[in-house]
Amino acid sequence: MPGNSIGKLFRVSTWGESHGKAIGVLVDGCPPGIALNEKDIQLKLDKRKPKGFFETSRREEDKAKILSGVFKGKTTGMPISIIIWNKDSRSKDYEKIKDIYRPGHADYTYEQKYGIYDYRGGGRSSGRETVARVMAGAIAEKILSRKKISVIGHTIQIGEIKSEKFKANEIGHNNLKCADKLAAKEMLNLLTTIKKEKNSIGGIIELIIRGVPIGLGEPVFDKLDADLAKAIMSIGGVKGISIGTGFDVATKKGSNNNDSYEIRRNQVRTATNNAGGILGGISNGEDIIVHIAVKAPASIGIEQKSLNKRRKTVNFTIGGRHDTCIVPRIIPVAESMAAITITDHLLLQESNQLQ
Amino acid sequence: MPGNSIGKLFRVSTWGESHGKAIGVLVDGCPPGIALNEKDIQLKLDKRKPKGFFETSRREEDKAKILSGVFKGKTTGMPISIIIWNKDSRSKDYEKIKDIYRPGHADYTYEQKYGIYDYRGGGRSSGRETVARVMAGAIAEKILSRKKISVIGHTIQIGEIKSEKFKANEIGHNNLKCADKLAAKEMLNLLTTIKKEKNSIGGIIELIIRGVPIGLGEPVFDKLDADLAKAIMSIGGVKGISIGTGFDVATKKGSNNNDSYEIRRNQVRTATNNAGGILGGISNGEDIIVHIAVKAPASIGIEQKSLNKRRKTVNFTIGGRHDTCIVPRIIPVAESMAAITITDHLLLQESNQLQ
Amino acid sequence: MPGNSIGKLFRVSTWGESHGKAIGVLVDGCPPGIALNEKDIQLKLDKRKPKGFFETSRREEDKAKILSGVFKGKTTGMPISIIIWNKDSRSKDYEKIKDIYRPGHADYTYEQKYGIYDYRGGGRSSGRETVARVMAGAIAEKILSRKKISVIGHTIQIGEIKSEKFKANEIGHNNLKCADKLAAKEMLNLLTTIKKEKNSIGGIIELIIRGVPIGLGEPVFDKLDADLAKAIMSIGGVKGISIGTGFDVATKKGSNNNDSYEIRRNQVRTATNNAGGILGGISNGEDIIVHIAVKAPASIGIEQKSLNKRRKTVNFTIGGRHDTCIVPRIIPVAESMAAITITDHLLLQESNQLQ
Amino acid sequence: MPGNSIGKLFRVSTWGESHGKAIGVLVDGCPPGIALNEKDIQLKLDKRKPKGFFETSRREEDKAKILSGVFKGKTTGMPISIIIWNKDSRSKDYEKIKDIYRPGHADYTYEQKYGIYDYRGGGRSSGRETVARVMAGAIAEKILSRKKISVIGHTIQIGEIKSEKFKANEIGHNNLKCADKLAAKEMLNLLTTIKKEKNSIGGIIELIIRGVPIGLGEPVFDKLDADLAKAIMSIGGVKGISIGTGFDVATKKGSNNNDSYEIRRNQVRTATNNAGGILGGISNGEDIIVHIAVKAPASIGIEQKSLNKRRKTVNFTIGGRHDTCIVPRIIPVAESMAAITITDHLLLQESNQLQ
Repeated sequence: MPGNSIGKLFRVSTWGESHGKAIGVLVDGCPPGIALNEKDIQLKLDKRKPKGFFETSRREEDKAKILSGVFKGKTTGMPISIIIWNKDSRSKDYEKIKDIYRPGHADYTYEQKYGIYDYRGGGRSSGRETVARVMAGAIAEKILSRKKISVIGHTIQIGEIKSEKFKANEIGHNNLKCADKLAAKEMLNLLTTIKKEKNSIGGIIELIIRGVPIGLGEPVFDKLDADLAKAIMSIGGVKGISIGTGFDVATKKGSNNNDSYEIRRNQVRTATNNAGGILGGISNGEDIIVHIAVKAPASIGIEQKSLNKRRKTVNFTIGGRHDTCIVPRIIPVAESMAAITITDHLLLQESNQLQ
Repeated sequence: MPGNSIGKLFRVSTWGESHGKAIGVLVDGCPPGIALNEKDIQLKLDKRKPKGFFETSRREEDKAKILSGVFKGKTTGMPISIIIWNKDSRSKDYEKIKDIYRPGHADYTYEQKYGIYDYRGGGRSSGRETVARVMAGAIAEKILSRKKISVIGHTIQIGEIKSEKFKANEIGHNNLKCADKLAAKEMLNLLTTIKKEKNSIGGIIELIIRGVPIGLGEPVFDKLDADLAKAIMSIGGVKGISIGTGFDVATKKGSNNNDSYEIRRNQVRTATNNAGGILGGISNGEDIIVHIAVKAPASIGIEQKSLNKRRKTVNFTIGGRHDTCIVPRIIPVAESMAAITITDHLLLQESNQLQ
Repeated sequence: MPGNSIGKLFRVSTWGESHGKAIGVLVDGCPPGIALNEKDIQLKLDKRKPKGFFETSRREEDKAKILSGVFKGKTTGMPISIIIWNKDSRSKDYEKIKDIYRPGHADYTYEQKYGIYDYRGGGRSSGRETVARVMAGAIAEKILSRKKISVIGHTIQIGEIKSEKFKANEIGHNNLKCADKLAAKEMLNLLTTIKKEKNSIGGIIELIIRGVPIGLGEPVFDKLDADLAKAIMSIGGVKGISIGTGFDVATKKGSNNNDSYEIRRNQVRTATNNAGGILGGISNGEDIIVHIAVKAPASIGIEQKSLNKRRKTVNFTIGGRHDTCIVPRIIPVAESMAAITITDHLLLQESNQLQ
Repeated sequence: MPGNSIGKLFRVSTWGESHGKAIGVLVDGCPPGIALNEKDIQLKLDKRKPKGFFETSRREEDKAKILSGVFKGKTTGMPISIIIWNKDSRSKDYEKIKDIYRPGHADYTYEQKYGIYDYRGGGRSSGRETVARVMAGAIAEKILSRKKISVIGHTIQIGEIKSEKFKANEIGHNNLKCADKLAAKEMLNLLTTIKKEKNSIGGIIELIIRGVPIGLGEPVFDKLDADLAKAIMSIGGVKGISIGTGFDVATKKGSNNNDSYEIRRNQVRTATNNAGGILGGISNGEDIIVHIAVKAPASIGIEQKSLNKRRKTVNFTIGGRHDTCIVPRIIPVAESMAAITITDHLLLQESNQLQ
């Protein structure tokens, strides 16, 4: 199958270019009878909108319109098509640099792969495509909420600055979605500096997925962590993903990495959660913990050196409206990709158990 | 589709339990006319066999038999079925602990998911399943070698000890597959200690994929890095995966993370390779660099606390034959999963370009 | 995967309800560089519009809008989203009968399956959904035309009246798309009578697919004829499909059913074409011949007996605007499904041959 | 995905050549906890064995060996691998004609498609491949029997002779699996004649699928009839498939083709069953009726004319052991493909209804 769809039973397909007429998502396989309206979608979409001083000044209205699959306020089991019209695109900004292979962008690889490339705003490779993922994520989250499953993302690192505390309430109180008030302040200071330098910076996101029932994940290739890894790595700018202890497992011994079982509140639980909620690719009922490495935005205001299509060296500066740091804007996207993945495995698990 | 298959056009399905009659792989979609015999498979299989003092003493002959899809020494385009008979399994070791949920293993999650579980040797969740992946990997590598694409894995970290140099020749000279002679020696010393403690330890693998043509990878969900992430995360014991600079992108600015383009040997190349060979999900012709976090084996000789099926607390010690460290044995598996993924994308790319 | 998509590499997904806001299609996997504009789509769409006196008086403008995947008049390899706004829907006609299980329609099965059903105009089960298939078919035909592959459908039977001659030019000259002028006249007379009776009637379509290269079709389940059978049987109202000699094979002996090979115009050809262009599931270069049985439209103006949702017997008459015979309107849909299937196999075949 | 697998959630993959070492099937997605042993498989396999005087004298023992996925007599949810070793193959018969394109066989199309072809016994295109389908069918039927769903196939036509009565008991009493004793006798007489002529003959099979719950089938492309059409058309030698009234719909008016609803035994039922149990692609609880056109075996003892690989005209006679009529041997295969399809849709339907 071509690459613009994800999920086996909860199948999400996105379409649209950054500066094309519209961006949309098609969700097939949504169970019938789920209450769904445009506000549900809008609520999640609004979380993705740029808000901070360090984020792009492109201001899209991003009004989601549901075109099919919902009847009298409920899903019907039929494909749900949702569309957003692009409005605030400025293609002129891109005319000037359309012949330059921008470092860190996909211009060169798309052009080489397809021989044709909609360079306006990065075309299909633009972060704008994620607006469609978030709309599907909103539907997934509606389904998950029925099962009391939630996905929370927060910023745990920007540059060298790390979040040290987790206060869930704090996440909504700063534009960085950081659960540590003090760290957030430092991070924002850092971003002020970076923005002045016309530079950009990376960071790390943590997802906490709560309430996942035991038993999601399909051995051996479609393990829950494997599918989460793919879904999240498919977000532009993500360069690493880990589960639980993650890369720190390198330094851990079996004796202190194994999570022993115990009874808590009358349930089988693990004493620790180094596994990050997944064992043998299957959820074990503990919180699923995912870490995500996000690179610095490639578009910077500093002069760069590169090649143009005639393979001549050029010095150039990228104009347009860009982000100093995309970590907080990727959070709702990462949450959405996780929600889509969990929903898909929830439906798969239904079919494993013949009544 | 159920979870025991991977790949769209080069489709690999594995089957078999650790202590079942046999283990096998079915490869569908292998192009016709590829020279292939059992020696090709055996060569790669032998790389996965335990060799070091720190590895299990289970000694399987692991003789691969090709049962279909090859005629007069060449692939026919028909499905290739390869089988290995299990011989050196000792199911008795597992009878004693069959009612215990072993920490760090999939006993509990499988039992909860399926209500039935072949506990002998971990059944399907055993590392033994990877023997089937390696056989498919051997076929993939035959195809890739036609295109001069190679996949090399090496150990870059065990516990706190890191490889500091890369000498390709060195990899074959130590049982750790470490490219740094000195680090390898230290790592082996560490493993001697850990083994004495009856404990186990984790580590990190690096894959270098060379010769990948520009243009592999399908936007937007089936990016090359997303598919690599899934394929590799699906290996038991892997807890993290990153591309290029990986988690270090958090601390990097755009100005020094972007890889600028230049002409080298008459080709468009990047001056640096922070992106790790993939931009916008599509290969850019540079080496693809993957880092893989591998946890300490869960089976240790130290007494552990857990629950049994009647939910009673038990203290127990795992007997049987186990590994102190599985990093080197995972290397051929990770190479295989990477080779399978690249082969699949190679075939996908053929179909993108209508002649 | 959910059921609203078809094709492996040329992937077509349709969405939308008969009386919903819009109907659309998403085509993923279209090769880049194909010249495509809205006129190409419109041309095919217009063939599906009701024209004859025996066809529904619902008159939709059906203006196709391409929203993505085309840049400067050419496909980019990105998903192509096409939309049509519904305008001439009269949902009131359906309010009256919304609680009645209409015989021959999908009301009852949808309601039982999903528990919720958009009854307006048959919702998703309406023939209106085929408008989306035709738009995808138009793209497929553009691709096929590059390879000089054509798909021609014509009516070979209405009621007891059979077409006896094949004059390709004649097809465009009557509203029945019948290649036999005389038969067409008789068929139209029959339809006049049936319409007066407020009844409806079935028929048979023949598709002739010309220019298909040798080698399309994937053993053993995805045979070309198997995939054609599925694609065409998925059209509402189709109750049978056959290839070549079809059901008449029952009475044929091997000696006169086998097509012997000979050299014609310097090419390997078969002397006869009982196989209908497909052997062992793979095209052999001869014309592919498909016959399709189409049932009488279920909506008739005659009073019928049925049950309502409270399971009470009711006598009722269906109002609204309906077709006496849908055979000619199904022809462009069947052509489209065939074109989509052939295109998909064309792309699959590219990937079989590693360069 | 390559073509040797079928089904979305109940996924069946077959492998092996007619004269290769073995033939096998891999079934992934079988729910856990189903009682299954080799006898279950053998029972169904034995139905496919040639028995009549009009069938091949190749006598394979066909002993099925289950290699994985079953533990203590029950399925575990893991892939089930089943193998049969080929024993009674006589490849010499094929050496003589290996350079001849046999009319009605797949020699020419395979050779052209793949450039390489295992000509021994037809290789992968041989009817022997269906042995693997029947083994998967046996598993599917075990699952269906839990739900009281059954699939019965019988011969309704051989040459011009049609079955006129349906007596279920009679099916097992003649080698033709014909439910009409008298017709069976006539058919056998016909076969005696045809066999003397060294010729072969076609026929028609009817499948009756009973007990299918309301609601199976996925709109709009994966309709239950569409998936049945594909599954059955994928059997070698099948040239047509129809549902319910089938091709006779051409001559039927809406008023007598529509099945009106009524209450019978307290259930919603249709008064007639022209639809053959499927409306809008979804099962309506009535018997599903499928007709299947089967061509005369292409291998006949009469001299034929064809081309060889050097494109020279040759006259030749096929030796070896062949069938005069394959209709009865295709019945268990068709039953199996139907059972596989229904099982798959049963699992899909589970996942449609989020608990």
